Amino acid sequence: MTEPLFTIPLWADLLGVGLGGVQGAMFASGFQGQRRLDWLGVAIIGIMIGMGGGLIRDILLGLPPATLHDNWYLVTATAAALFGMLLAGVFNRINTVIVVLDAVVIGMFGAFGASKAIAVGTPPVPAVFIGVCAAVGGGVLRDMLMGLPTAIMHVGSLYAVAAGAGCTFIVIANGLGMPITLAAIIGIVVTAVIRILAVSFDVSLPEQRRLYRRKVAAETGMIPIIKPSAE
Amino acid sequence: MTEPLFTIPLWADLLGVGLGGVQGAMFASGFQGQRRLDWLGVAIIGIMIGMGGGLIRDILLGLPPATLHDNWYLVTATAAALFGMLLAGVFNRINTVIVVLDAVVIGMFGAFGASKAIAVGTPPVPAVFIGVCAAVGGGVLRDMLMGLPTAIMHVGSLYAVAAGAGCTFIVIANGLGMPITLAAIIGIVVTAVIRILAVSFDVSLPEQRRLYRRKVAAETGMIPIIKPSAE
Amino acid sequence: MTEPLFTIPLWADLLGVGLGGVQGAMFASGFQGQRRLDWLGVAIIGIMIGMGGGLIRDILLGLPPATLHDNWYLVTATAAALFGMLLAGVFNRINTVIVVLDAVVIGMFGAFGASKAIAVGTPPVPAVFIGVCAAVGGGVLRDMLMGLPTAIMHVGSLYAVAAGAGCTFIVIANGLGMPITLAAIIGIVVTAVIRILAVSFDVSLPEQRRLYRRKVAAETGMIPIIKPSAE
Repeated sequence: MTEPLFTIPLWADLLGVGLGGVQGAMFASGFQGQRRLDWLGVAIIGIMIGMGGGLIRDILLGLPPATLHDNWYLVTATAAALFGMLLAGVFNRINTVIVVLDAVVIGMFGAFGASKAIAVGTPPVPAVFIGVCAAVGGGVLRDMLMGLPTAIMHVGSLYAVAAGAGCTFIVIANGLGMPITLAAIIGIVVTAVIRILAVSFDVSLPEQRRLYRRKVAAETGMIPIIKPSAE
Repeated sequence: MTEPLFTIPLWADLLGVGLGGVQGAMFASGFQGQRRLDWLGVAIIGIMIGMGGGLIRDILLGLPPATLHDNWYLVTATAAALFGMLLAGVFNRINTVIVVLDAVVIGMFGAFGASKAIAVGTPPVPAVFIGVCAAVGGGVLRDMLMGLPTAIMHVGSLYAVAAGAGCTFIVIANGLGMPITLAAIIGIVVTAVIRILAVSFDVSLPEQRRLYRRKVAAETGMIPIIKPSAE
Repeated sequence: MTEPLFTIPLWADLLGVGLGGVQGAMFASGFQGQRRLDWLGVAIIGIMIGMGGGLIRDILLGLPPATLHDNWYLVTATAAALFGMLLAGVFNRINTVIVVLDAVVIGMFGAFGASKAIAVGTPPVPAVFIGVCAAVGGGVLRDMLMGLPTAIMHVGSLYAVAAGAGCTFIVIANGLGMPITLAAIIGIVVTAVIRILAVSFDVSLPEQRRLYRRKVAAETGMIPIIKPSAE
């Protein structure tokens, strides 16, 4: 691997962080009733989803976390989370918005993870693995922090599959000579499309999803009114 | 940021680790009944609280964990935990001791986190963030390991707020030219005072605290006889 | 510490990863009924157990994770997990296989952790600590991801004790001049024998083990048909 060092443009990285923050806040504000999160809790979840994937990626790569070397990441994630909390009231029941946002966010985190891994010389198999961890890591952190059953193990397999397909595409296409930027863009589309199709055709293990909701409700006394998500 | 490299004096760092170990052990030994922790479990919790914040700080900064480059940290944390276990029988019902100890520990971890972040050139916003993570990180690790609902999300917002206020003071005051040692000391006081006032005037979301206790009792079959804490 | 840099031979490292993957898959496939894991879930658990200890070791040492600098680790862990899933049907009730496999895996991860820590100049006490974390870390990650009560805190003390004894032997023997390879081999035997004896003579806190099973069954609706394990 003698790639020239690839840098994710700041605007693209911040776009991912911002969309993740919005998505996290919409998830968090979906909890109603007794254990409704206050705005600080929502902001924490937003930061977790917006920045968690990038943190995990950099720790796995043995690099200092890029998102903590610049003021803008935290500012963006927090602002996006608060914005997402406002949006939640409006959009929370429009399932399509949630699903598409979710799919694009997974795609972006996966693509940034795999691209950065390739850029620093990671071999192909771990490059895909790091991409998948970056894609689903924020959601896993969120579930652990909130004491929810980790979605990735129970309803989220297809998140990992979608992210894995996109990241595998990026690694192979780049290995065959496709410029990394183009490969990353196509990889985002691959992941997002697989994810959206999976939801549309309901191949996401409905029994488990139902069990998940029931378990969340039983354990926490709150009903997730939006679809649980691994991202 | 062209700070001269700031090193936390070993004695101060060990003091924080030791107080954290005592505090962790007092929390852990508060569990009674069926699932009482044995002395090894108490020691693990003590190590987690005493050293967890520093570990998280260094991982977020991309530095090798300082607490694992010296024998004394683990020795101090373990000894403090065993000492705390003995103290627990005596002090566990004297709420003031617990509250003050807790507040000082959060303040110290937050101040060390923010100071070290500044020292290695972290920009202001992530420096505050790293300080807050260092302050509450040990408690989050403890709750995850013990399978408790993470206090930070449900009762602990005010921990994050108190730590955030202290760390913000440190970053701003140091940015305006105050020597880092003085700024850190004042920052510890700011965090500790906010925390103690919050408890005294009971602004720490009492309904949620009650819910938290009830949930812990329901899920684990044990009643936390000391106040749940995010640190 | 002026050890010549010790490298764990790739075959030994992959052997540990492979055995860990098999062990993880056998644990994961022990869950029956409603929340049976699909093959992807089993593979994730296998990767977690096979590679988690090494990841934690390298992060604590401040080194880039070795298991992500080579394609073979992930390939081995995944293949071993799928192989373990097949074996589970055959061997799952032969308790001896599980117990011995488990004991050897803990011993290997602990020994590799302590040896690598010594090799990079870690002082004795944290070197033992890092060995223990490497030994039990994969199991802790698994329990967190699966939303199980963390075995290490409730039934797993003796895992930590067994790993601690083996790692302490390695650090002391190597400090007294024994070649690290020999010390590591003896350390693996020490850990494995302690663990196997503990199970044979049932010194593993049976009441807690029973409570653990009951709690897992109550919380998750699934009964672990194999012994819960911290590794």
